[in-house]
Amino acid sequence: MTFATSPTIDLRSDTVTRPDETMRAAMASAEVGDAVIDVDPTMRQLEERTAELLGLPAALWVPSGTMANVIALTLYLGRGDRFLAPRDAHVLVRELGTSAWLAGGMPEPLEPDAGPGRPTAASLARAIGPRDNSYLLLRTTLLCLENTHNAAGGLVIPPHEHAQLAATAKEAGLKVHLDGARLWNAAVALDLPVAALAVGADTVSVCYSKGLGAPVGSALVGGREFIEQARRMRQMLGGGVRQGGVLAAACLRALENMDDLAQDHENARRLAEGLAEIGWAVGAPQTNIVLAGVPDVPLTISRLENAGVLASPMAGKVRFVTHRDVSAPDIDEALRRIKSAAGQ
Amino acid sequence: MTFATSPTIDLRSDTVTRPDETMRAAMASAEVGDAVIDVDPTMRQLEERTAELLGLPAALWVPSGTMANVIALTLYLGRGDRFLAPRDAHVLVRELGTSAWLAGGMPEPLEPDAGPGRPTAASLARAIGPRDNSYLLLRTTLLCLENTHNAAGGLVIPPHEHAQLAATAKEAGLKVHLDGARLWNAAVALDLPVAALAVGADTVSVCYSKGLGAPVGSALVGGREFIEQARRMRQMLGGGVRQGGVLAAACLRALENMDDLAQDHENARRLAEGLAEIGWAVGAPQTNIVLAGVPDVPLTISRLENAGVLASPMAGKVRFVTHRDVSAPDIDEALRRIKSAAGQ
Amino acid sequence: MTFATSPTIDLRSDTVTRPDETMRAAMASAEVGDAVIDVDPTMRQLEERTAELLGLPAALWVPSGTMANVIALTLYLGRGDRFLAPRDAHVLVRELGTSAWLAGGMPEPLEPDAGPGRPTAASLARAIGPRDNSYLLLRTTLLCLENTHNAAGGLVIPPHEHAQLAATAKEAGLKVHLDGARLWNAAVALDLPVAALAVGADTVSVCYSKGLGAPVGSALVGGREFIEQARRMRQMLGGGVRQGGVLAAACLRALENMDDLAQDHENARRLAEGLAEIGWAVGAPQTNIVLAGVPDVPLTISRLENAGVLASPMAGKVRFVTHRDVSAPDIDEALRRIKSAAGQ
Amino acid sequence: MTFATSPTIDLRSDTVTRPDETMRAAMASAEVGDAVIDVDPTMRQLEERTAELLGLPAALWVPSGTMANVIALTLYLGRGDRFLAPRDAHVLVRELGTSAWLAGGMPEPLEPDAGPGRPTAASLARAIGPRDNSYLLLRTTLLCLENTHNAAGGLVIPPHEHAQLAATAKEAGLKVHLDGARLWNAAVALDLPVAALAVGADTVSVCYSKGLGAPVGSALVGGREFIEQARRMRQMLGGGVRQGGVLAAACLRALENMDDLAQDHENARRLAEGLAEIGWAVGAPQTNIVLAGVPDVPLTISRLENAGVLASPMAGKVRFVTHRDVSAPDIDEALRRIKSAAGQ
Repeated sequence: MTFATSPTIDLRSDTVTRPDETMRAAMASAEVGDAVIDVDPTMRQLEERTAELLGLPAALWVPSGTMANVIALTLYLGRGDRFLAPRDAHVLVRELGTSAWLAGGMPEPLEPDAGPGRPTAASLARAIGPRDNSYLLLRTTLLCLENTHNAAGGLVIPPHEHAQLAATAKEAGLKVHLDGARLWNAAVALDLPVAALAVGADTVSVCYSKGLGAPVGSALVGGREFIEQARRMRQMLGGGVRQGGVLAAACLRALENMDDLAQDHENARRLAEGLAEIGWAVGAPQTNIVLAGVPDVPLTISRLENAGVLASPMAGKVRFVTHRDVSAPDIDEALRRIKSAAGQ
Repeated sequence: MTFATSPTIDLRSDTVTRPDETMRAAMASAEVGDAVIDVDPTMRQLEERTAELLGLPAALWVPSGTMANVIALTLYLGRGDRFLAPRDAHVLVRELGTSAWLAGGMPEPLEPDAGPGRPTAASLARAIGPRDNSYLLLRTTLLCLENTHNAAGGLVIPPHEHAQLAATAKEAGLKVHLDGARLWNAAVALDLPVAALAVGADTVSVCYSKGLGAPVGSALVGGREFIEQARRMRQMLGGGVRQGGVLAAACLRALENMDDLAQDHENARRLAEGLAEIGWAVGAPQTNIVLAGVPDVPLTISRLENAGVLASPMAGKVRFVTHRDVSAPDIDEALRRIKSAAGQ
Repeated sequence: MTFATSPTIDLRSDTVTRPDETMRAAMASAEVGDAVIDVDPTMRQLEERTAELLGLPAALWVPSGTMANVIALTLYLGRGDRFLAPRDAHVLVRELGTSAWLAGGMPEPLEPDAGPGRPTAASLARAIGPRDNSYLLLRTTLLCLENTHNAAGGLVIPPHEHAQLAATAKEAGLKVHLDGARLWNAAVALDLPVAALAVGADTVSVCYSKGLGAPVGSALVGGREFIEQARRMRQMLGGGVRQGGVLAAACLRALENMDDLAQDHENARRLAEGLAEIGWAVGAPQTNIVLAGVPDVPLTISRLENAGVLASPMAGKVRFVTHRDVSAPDIDEALRRIKSAAGQ
Repeated sequence: MTFATSPTIDLRSDTVTRPDETMRAAMASAEVGDAVIDVDPTMRQLEERTAELLGLPAALWVPSGTMANVIALTLYLGRGDRFLAPRDAHVLVRELGTSAWLAGGMPEPLEPDAGPGRPTAASLARAIGPRDNSYLLLRTTLLCLENTHNAAGGLVIPPHEHAQLAATAKEAGLKVHLDGARLWNAAVALDLPVAALAVGADTVSVCYSKGLGAPVGSALVGGREFIEQARRMRQMLGGGVRQGGVLAAACLRALENMDDLAQDHENARRLAEGLAEIGWAVGAPQTNIVLAGVPDVPLTISRLENAGVLASPMAGKVRFVTHRDVSAPDIDEALRRIKSAAGQ
């Protein structure tokens, strides 16, 4: 047993990535200012660069993807307004009820009639229902999309599919928010510019601290007026920070890592193939997430941990996430350990 | 065309019932007090009688069933807590997002795997999920049941079915609230005392102003301490009234109408049979609600209105509700008008 | 000791008034409808009559004055908006934090620099502060007035005083809501039409169940669009009732009692004079509220109760409220009892 | 005119301090982990050190002082609970209504009867009022203190004064939260350990990014169970970050700067003396804040800006804040510029 001495391979999430030397150097030399009462020049540069990448007018740095989504929902939803999101979307199952508590919105999951994570326009139209102005009925005012879709195993939604949903939503007067925590992965997988995936969305949230490797930070991207309101809401929630430029410098550096995501995707395919060889039920991953169906999820995760591989539970399966701190040889070693653990 | 001269037959809801002479007389002679700063004796009598009927320690009069449910949800749910209810339950689809806005709770619809309105204990257990104390996950703290189930066509849930769901919920540490807006109808249909249908529920909301015919009023029924907290919450929401005894007198009188509900159920069956004869897709109603599947719901409702019969849309169908202001001959007349309208 | 046998004289509040025979008859014969899904003709008549009295376009019946104020605050205040009200105003000290919890508004008491209940325009301007668009500062969006001012002993605010405050508020972009729970009393005291006291207010809440004697009901009065939004909010809070016409009939009848308030005011003066004679610190009441300063408020109230007179604590004093169920001879008897109790 | 070429002297706030080389080096070499799903070792070290400094069991890093206070208020206040804070306290006037919107609490300013920022125990007892269990009354559940008191010009509250208020609060069943955004300054001014200023408080918020000079970060400090709940609430609000160790390293380094605050205080005294010489109304500052009364605050601030000195408006005065990026010679230069501007 060599596991005790060799380091654990952490595949729980791409959020575990650590800043590398170039990022640390960028942080150490960042030009900064007080972003609350004034302007932090590096943060401003990051926000401008991000808005440009998404093809939208403005962006606002926030400490986390949760805050980006919370701010969007809170600004979009009036008291008791209903919003729609694909079943198992992150905003429905993981954000601790903030859509309800903070935003006061009533969530409604969309039936994924074209497969996990993929409701069709027909499913959306059904959920919106017929036009009815009765003051007794919930108003549906927002559609939340997600790309890649986490609980569907990092599924990439092609642009035309989201565009069609967005068009249906807009025709019915809804706004469209895109949870793009891993939108970079979708863009790399499709070999498209990120902006192509934001078409039809009024606002997008993106994350610098997952696959791109920055230590802290996300952004909410959208129209100028909306982003000004978001700045106020960020302050209310306590997300306004002072010399944020030290973090923004790392986020700017992280944006240069985008092409490296292709290697994560390749590693995920390699991992999936290895798991299939030992008879585990895995699909072909499109990005950096591998979902494996096993009989007993908690027991399997516990055994893997003993064998030196960390995974996490997701949607009733075992989730492995590849990322820049795990190399191809690490994946091979992980497979050896998993096979050994599975043989127990 | 005789419709213009004969009165419209209103089958939109049993909420349209008007107080009869005995009720009006009871209101006119009610003993009253200031229920906010003191005690209204008639209201107190109503609350005691209602608690006794439900087999629970205490009851609180409220202006509407919506307020009864709002108070219950608000007291049960912490910020961001998740609650479960059968898909299409009234608290999910009709109460204007109050569970989200006011109570701050995150709703989750239960798959009705045993038919519309009827999730099984297995479906409930799946929705509760495995025990996991991670602070990152939503806490599920409440199960909301509904009997009869409105959107399933006044479906009666037999006591053992709810008892089983309640047992599964309690084992997982959840509280159980029963939306009993039409619980009286279920009791009459099953020929059981109302209290038999409250078994397993921590709190129940009941309504005096639907089939029983009172003009205004519902109640929240439960433990003494809970009801004292509910009194405070009622005051916050603006539901505390002064000489409410004038309404409570009508509600007390309405409780004596319970046996008459059997006639409403008989009328619903009569109506359903007639509709089946002209080829409409209707099931056999168990209580006072008839849901008819037709190709174009809004058009059908509009034609019926022209023919002198009022119905309402519900769950993608045409809903007819029988009640004490509609007699058996009225049903026959309604069928004549419907047939005539359908022949257009 | 004769107190045990003669009835208690209840001066705790004018909310304790009981509906008289004419009111009960009106309730018993009221024409009704389902006010939630349709129209209740008597309620509609009441709302039209009330809007006309206030000189505003529309009115909405609600179960309580608390709900009228809650709805107004909730519709006016965005998340975290600040609102201003005279120190000790009912919306600040008695409505159970609903402005904070439900409306999400930050209250700020106005210094009453012209005497209790009477802030001046200068005090208001100071509280509004200089124009400053910083996104870091609270937005002040609403001024809440109160007439008569309860905690200042039923103080009447003359129209020009409120008009001046309203003008200052509007110049700074604030909306103006008037809590007129006892606005009828102010109108009678000033011998002015009620509408004259609503000048400058965007919305007014009035109460049928205090001095006018109806058992249940208040109204929110304002612009048409606002009132339509209020109808939706009333439904969310659970204040929508069905055959509310039975209550509206009593409220309509109550409006005919307005002139009788002069007698309550006369009785309050009589009571105050009597209390002054025994050395209690009382001002000259303008309406139906007498505030008496005594060394030990709880002890005094308890002794009065033993002597057969009920009073309540208010703003550190003993409050007596005269009303239509207490006659001039009752006041004389109350004074005899109070003197006897004070002599203990 | 030399102002265009010499750098502006920024005295708007001590939040404008920029991280120095040692801090940047600490950030660049920080050991990190994923603080959301696991542990970040540097953040843990910071939290343990901070708890120890305050003499309390546990601490939680948060992105801002606003979030620290928001979390505390939200956890302490039930729906509609009332809380007390000295008039003009930061939680009342600057945190964008979060106590109302998020926490749902009703704020009540305490009369500062011992001078600005200093309510006495008598004032507190008056605000708490007599014990009264009526369900109609607001419940007062929390006292918020502030040290140093910003709007009173960085006023230091001596420990016995806060201890007395805390004792009065606890006797009445209230919890006590201390907003210690500049508690370090108070400790240095009094030459006492920080923990001596936390006596009587259940929780304390402290800030690393003001006088101590860290770029980003505050902490909420208190009991273990409370801090665990705070971790969940931080996640809901979007304040949970991943490799926060890069920031925590700077915060740890900042704690070593505490003694340097004495120089800021000395600089503030120097500045105040200089302002007094030109006839401005300034008190003797106790810490690093100088409030100057001038006839026209906005005009004065604008003239100072043109002369190369930045100040901010606060409580109707001009506020200057000294900090580690401004030296004694800078203060002399600032005084020269101010005198020149004042001479216009």
